[in-house]
Amino acid sequence: MRSVHVDLGDRSYPIYIGEGLLQEASSYFIKHGVSTKSPLMIVTDSKVAPHYLEALSANLAQGGFTVAAAAVPSGESSKSLAMLEELVTKALEAGLDRKSAIVALGGGVVGDLAGFAAASYMRGIKFIQIPTTILAHDSSVGGKVAVNHPLAKNIIGAFHQPEFVLYDLSTLKTLPPREVSSGLAEVVKHGLIWDAEFTAWCEENANRLLELDADALGYALFKGCGVKANVVSQDERESGLRAILNLGHTIGHALEAVAGYNELQHGEAISIGMIGSAKLGVRYGAPVEVYETTKRALQSCGLPVAVPAHMDTDAIMAALMHDKKFSEGTAVFVVPTSIGSVEIKPDVPLAWVREIVEELKREA
Amino acid sequence: MRSVHVDLGDRSYPIYIGEGLLQEASSYFIKHGVSTKSPLMIVTDSKVAPHYLEALSANLAQGGFTVAAAAVPSGESSKSLAMLEELVTKALEAGLDRKSAIVALGGGVVGDLAGFAAASYMRGIKFIQIPTTILAHDSSVGGKVAVNHPLAKNIIGAFHQPEFVLYDLSTLKTLPPREVSSGLAEVVKHGLIWDAEFTAWCEENANRLLELDADALGYALFKGCGVKANVVSQDERESGLRAILNLGHTIGHALEAVAGYNELQHGEAISIGMIGSAKLGVRYGAPVEVYETTKRALQSCGLPVAVPAHMDTDAIMAALMHDKKFSEGTAVFVVPTSIGSVEIKPDVPLAWVREIVEELKREA
Ligand SMILES: NC(=O)c1ccc[n+]([C@@H]2O[C@H](COP(=O)([O-])OP(=O)(O)OC[C@H]3O[C@@H](n4cnc5c(N)ncnc54)[C@H](O)[C@@H]3O)[C@@H](O)[C@H]2O)c1
Ligand SMILES: NC(=O)c1ccc[n+]([C@@H]2O[C@H](COP(=O)([O-])OP(=O)(O)OC[C@H]3O[C@@H](n4cnc5c(N)ncnc54)[C@H](O)[C@@H]3O)[C@@H](O)[C@H]2O)c1
Ligand SMILES: [Zn+2]
Ligand SMILES: [Zn+2]
Repeated sequence: MRSVHVDLGDRSYPIYIGEGLLQEASSYFIKHGVSTKSPLMIVTDSKVAPHYLEALSANLAQGGFTVAAAAVPSGESSKSLAMLEELVTKALEAGLDRKSAIVALGGGVVGDLAGFAAASYMRGIKFIQIPTTILAHDSSVGGKVAVNHPLAKNIIGAFHQPEFVLYDLSTLKTLPPREVSSGLAEVVKHGLIWDAEFTAWCEENANRLLELDADALGYALFKGCGVKANVVSQDERESGLRAILNLGHTIGHALEAVAGYNELQHGEAISIGMIGSAKLGVRYGAPVEVYETTKRALQSCGLPVAVPAHMDTDAIMAALMHDKKFSEGTAVFVVPTSIGSVEIKPDVPLAWVREIVEELKREA
Repeated sequence: MRSVHVDLGDRSYPIYIGEGLLQEASSYFIKHGVSTKSPLMIVTDSKVAPHYLEALSANLAQGGFTVAAAAVPSGESSKSLAMLEELVTKALEAGLDRKSAIVALGGGVVGDLAGFAAASYMRGIKFIQIPTTILAHDSSVGGKVAVNHPLAKNIIGAFHQPEFVLYDLSTLKTLPPREVSSGLAEVVKHGLIWDAEFTAWCEENANRLLELDADALGYALFKGCGVKANVVSQDERESGLRAILNLGHTIGHALEAVAGYNELQHGEAISIGMIGSAKLGVRYGAPVEVYETTKRALQSCGLPVAVPAHMDTDAIMAALMHDKKFSEGTAVFVVPTSIGSVEIKPDVPLAWVREIVEELKREA
């Protein structure tokens, strides 16, 4: 069992990473002072529930907890105010009070939704995360919780740190392969922005990761969470440093916006975005190895590294401009200077970005 | 001009109380570092907008601010997630960003709704309150913001302190008389729990208050906000002391639940509730003057001091039990020990409460 300490003053919390933790959940709840006198509510989704809800509920009940559960439909559309209202209905029916906790059992969607429910129910109750995707290692650090609005993603939310995170590697066994690769994109990102050695390790151990080898996965999530914890503990409310976590996300979000339904997962889009950033880095004088290493690490994890050829460059550039308000002709980018280190470039010429998007299309 | 300092560490803020402040709004915005580069959104309601929205918007525009406005229907039903979603639509359309502020121009309903919008839009932007009711002096201190759920009031919310509060006494001139009295109930409450001298002052100056004499009102709101600020600064997250603010609210909420539509305003219900608490206090040994003074102070403000005779005692008791989970046969009550001082009684026999409700009905 590994653990990462997320250092946020009196909102600090640990992330426990190991196999079979679901079967020991109640002991962690008790250790962290969750009251058995107040009911808990597990929030999960329709794909996760059949695999893991019963095991978790049973263990918590055995530990003396009263447990209610709500399973929302799998998918991003569950991150809505309407779903929040439904969760609050369930919470009220189950009698959740100020001492209760809401438990997220699922990926980032369930984490963000349940986390916002915990942040706002009775103006804030305890929140516990049990992530079941690799991508959720990212959302398990930093306390960002939110739902979407029809016009904008993650626009209604809060900062609400969990009491603790229980990362049971065994639950990852049922993840579809595409979700595995997509989650690894953020793991690799954490190496690229902070830790050259870990980036090399990712490339070398990519096959073990893709096969969900528990030891390799445990180490990768430990390192990934650790990097994010380092960044977030220096900038909890996103006023500066935290921006480096957006490596690959400017181009990535634009690609997501332009892509057809189910064409690009988030991790796939930012994988391509990170290649773009690496190309930018080289233009700014970073050694070409930065680009080559970035590309090998991502490719070895089964991730795409080129823009799908049919995508329209103008549409991508328009989406990119829409994403953030940039001053005329330039954009803000996170750009690698070497493997394990990035800087914020506030005025990257859009002409360069367009050229790089074109290059990325030719490589498809 | 008077001002109250709400002392909450790095979330401290001032409440400015005076006449004609609306006409000087922009200077306060600038003084408090609100950026003219990011658009503002004023949230108000359909009854307040015709009187004050234009004046405020015009002054802010003159001060260099870009201003959007949203007027929700007057009344408690606007405190909903659906209305929150509409406000976020407007905020997105108006281009509100992380440096923007949401401004509440109205009573407690608008304050709670706009405050929760500010707390959750982009995970929290600036919030400025411009209260236009007397009751809103209560909601202008403490940072509690929330919307309702069909099954429970104020159940979805946050703690989100404003940057500052601008209390323009001139706006109170258009308040319906019943709203004036209702608001004064909370003013008197702040005297009863904390300040005997101020309680006496309220009784003596009740007529000036009812006539909306600016000098008297300014002093009353200054004192009322001051008491609440004192309590809240010692207990921001409601873990102890803040409970004394619930004087009169246990019976009051039960009466509100049982009353027919528009039969009892919140202030009217807690007025009756405070009489009940005073009766309880006397049973616990407080001098009978506590009851007499409480009654005179409230009556002089035009508030009811008896339970409407047609109300069913069983229904009131059921509502009271429903409000909080009480251990068998007893209830938690805030009870006066003398004027200006209260204590929490954790185990008031329900039999006593029933007797007091019956007494309060006979006095109708
Ligand atoms: N809060 C943050 O800091 C943060 C950071 C990154 C991403 N996010 C959010 O996370 C979300 C994406 O996270 P995600 O990729 O985990 O999405 P997800 O929760 O939708 O999970 C992906 C898919 O896998 C399924 N699934 C989850 N666990 C499974 C398991 N163990 N076995 C089988 N199927 C399983 C889900 O039902 C879903 O269909 C986005 O909404 C994003 O905005 C938040
Ligand atoms: N956040 C807190 O700490 C806190 C504390 C107390 C009450 N509250 C909340 O406050 C709300 C009640 O506040 P309220 O009594 O101000 O209600 P309100 O906002 O509904 O105002 C009462 C009525 O007066 C009208 N009005 C407001 N200002 C006016 C003016 N200047 N001229 C003419 N009409 C005007 C409104 O349109 C409404 O019809 C409740 O929702 C309650 O939950 C919150
Ligand atoms: Zn991401
Ligand atoms: Zn009240």
